[in-house]
Amino acid sequence: MKVSVKVPATSANLGPGFDTMGMAFPLYNTVTIEETVMPGSGVLIELVSDFDYRDKALLEHVPVDENSIIYKAVELLYNSIGQTPAELKITVDSKIPMTRGLGSSSSVIVGALIAANELLGRPADEAALLSIAAEIEGHPDNVAPAILGGVLMASIQEDASVVYKKLPWPEEWKVTACVPDFELSTEIARSVLPKEVPMKDAIFNAQRTAMFVDAIHTKDSALMKLALQDKLHQPYRMNLMPGLDKIMEQLKYEENVLGCVVSGAGSTILLITENNGAEKAKAIVKNIWHDLNVKVDMYDFPIDINGAQIIS
Amino acid sequence: MKVSVKVPATSANLGPGFDTMGMAFPLYNTVTIEETVMPGSGVLIELVSDFDYRDKALLEHVPVDENSIIYKAVELLYNSIGQTPAELKITVDSKIPMTRGLGSSSSVIVGALIAANELLGRPADEAALLSIAAEIEGHPDNVAPAILGGVLMASIQEDASVVYKKLPWPEEWKVTACVPDFELSTEIARSVLPKEVPMKDAIFNAQRTAMFVDAIHTKDSALMKLALQDKLHQPYRMNLMPGLDKIMEQLKYEENVLGCVVSGAGSTILLITENNGAEKAKAIVKNIWHDLNVKVDMYDFPIDINGAQIIS
Repeated sequence: MKVSVKVPATSANLGPGFDTMGMAFPLYNTVTIEETVMPGSGVLIELVSDFDYRDKALLEHVPVDENSIIYKAVELLYNSIGQTPAELKITVDSKIPMTRGLGSSSSVIVGALIAANELLGRPADEAALLSIAAEIEGHPDNVAPAILGGVLMASIQEDASVVYKKLPWPEEWKVTACVPDFELSTEIARSVLPKEVPMKDAIFNAQRTAMFVDAIHTKDSALMKLALQDKLHQPYRMNLMPGLDKIMEQLKYEENVLGCVVSGAGSTILLITENNGAEKAKAIVKNIWHDLNVKVDMYDFPIDINGAQIIS
Repeated sequence: MKVSVKVPATSANLGPGFDTMGMAFPLYNTVTIEETVMPGSGVLIELVSDFDYRDKALLEHVPVDENSIIYKAVELLYNSIGQTPAELKITVDSKIPMTRGLGSSSSVIVGALIAANELLGRPADEAALLSIAAEIEGHPDNVAPAILGGVLMASIQEDASVVYKKLPWPEEWKVTACVPDFELSTEIARSVLPKEVPMKDAIFNAQRTAMFVDAIHTKDSALMKLALQDKLHQPYRMNLMPGLDKIMEQLKYEENVLGCVVSGAGSTILLITENNGAEKAKAIVKNIWHDLNVKVDMYDFPIDINGAQIIS
């Protein structure tokens, strides 16, 4: 038996919503799990990418053995029903750029969980899969939109369950992902964050997430522009992302540009624009990064509304 | 000339929305400013309360001279147009319990500002009054609903302007204010708060304010129950409010009780309930406080939707 699951790229944080907000994009990794015919062959993991020469080089450093998060995800699911994974061949067809803050690791966790769940006869429901995936990632803001699609807020409760809500993102608001050619490991991007933050910054972000949600519900672009600010993670990561401070400063005063936020832990930047704002904003990002010798791929992304799909 | 302004009581914070969320209630202080006939008599401030014997005793300790916040508010407004207050008689008819977290100080600031503005021929618009009032209070979550009415979120921007948005509070959600007979000074309640907080608590509250706003927009009672939690101020104030931990713990598992939050800096507790939840919740609060010899007045409050009104 063989199951393939297609999982969208995701962007987490979205400015003020650190470990809280996320959205899904139509760029997919496909995880295929196959029960192999050879008993005793164990779990084989294979990564395939025709996407980009940089990621091909990177692929060589991704663990494909029992240290892989793919293996961990599958193992956790098997363990949850008292089994251990036996003879499996897991293939990942990777189209999502890695270590750029676009949820590639969440996508393979989610894909592996859903595929393994299907192979096992669906012992876990959606809530359980979400909870396991969030446990592996440590935060729910990539795995929730990867599973469910859309723009949503999510949080892990005391009992380890994930509470989420889809938000009615106005289709007038365009999202552009600017993917630079430098990598940023989530581990490093997390390590620069302090354990404690000023109370006033905590209040600042709590105000902005509230404004963020209200702005979406009421399609209030002016409020969204104020909401897309953050003091909990982006300021600490500024030094890891050349040009980001300049890009943010310049975009602040551009009409029809609602905001510029770091996607996940970076290095991708998301531009939120309306009307004709995207072209102007993209030119600004391109120019500033060009001066710093940073090459950039840009994607005008609609929102993926379906989330992970079993395709065969 | 003489102007009277009626200003509603307010409750700030509402759980997760520390310095952010507020609502107005139909319990009013009336501030009257009169130009006196005697030149050189200066500014006279008079406080009147027929409300409660406890507050009458308290009134004696409220400064009625130039140290009064009422005087400061009036002075700030006069100064903003290059004048100084001359011969004025200011009377406050106080119906809002003091030092109980129901916005009595905000109400007199707002009332004095609006009355003085009227006397001066309205030099300040609503945005300017809001900004001055928030500056005096240091946070906008009482003064904004005191001026505007309703349930709203508000924040002070870098340029000192106040950005606010009214939220469509579902009328099915009932609010009960439980006002105990012990006082709690805002100064003390602020002094127990730390300058720095754990990052995870900052994330916790940012998630809850987002849930709070979404729950209101979508009338999602289950989400609201999760949203009405806080880690930024209430835990630190627990020791100042006898019985609060026990009350919160017991109400957590009651059906139709969405939450129990500290009103402003306390000592009032707000109960948010639906259907028949209020009676049960009130009985629990009454019992726990009775055992601690705390007397309590309870008000089932509709939301005041008008805010401050010039009544003559």
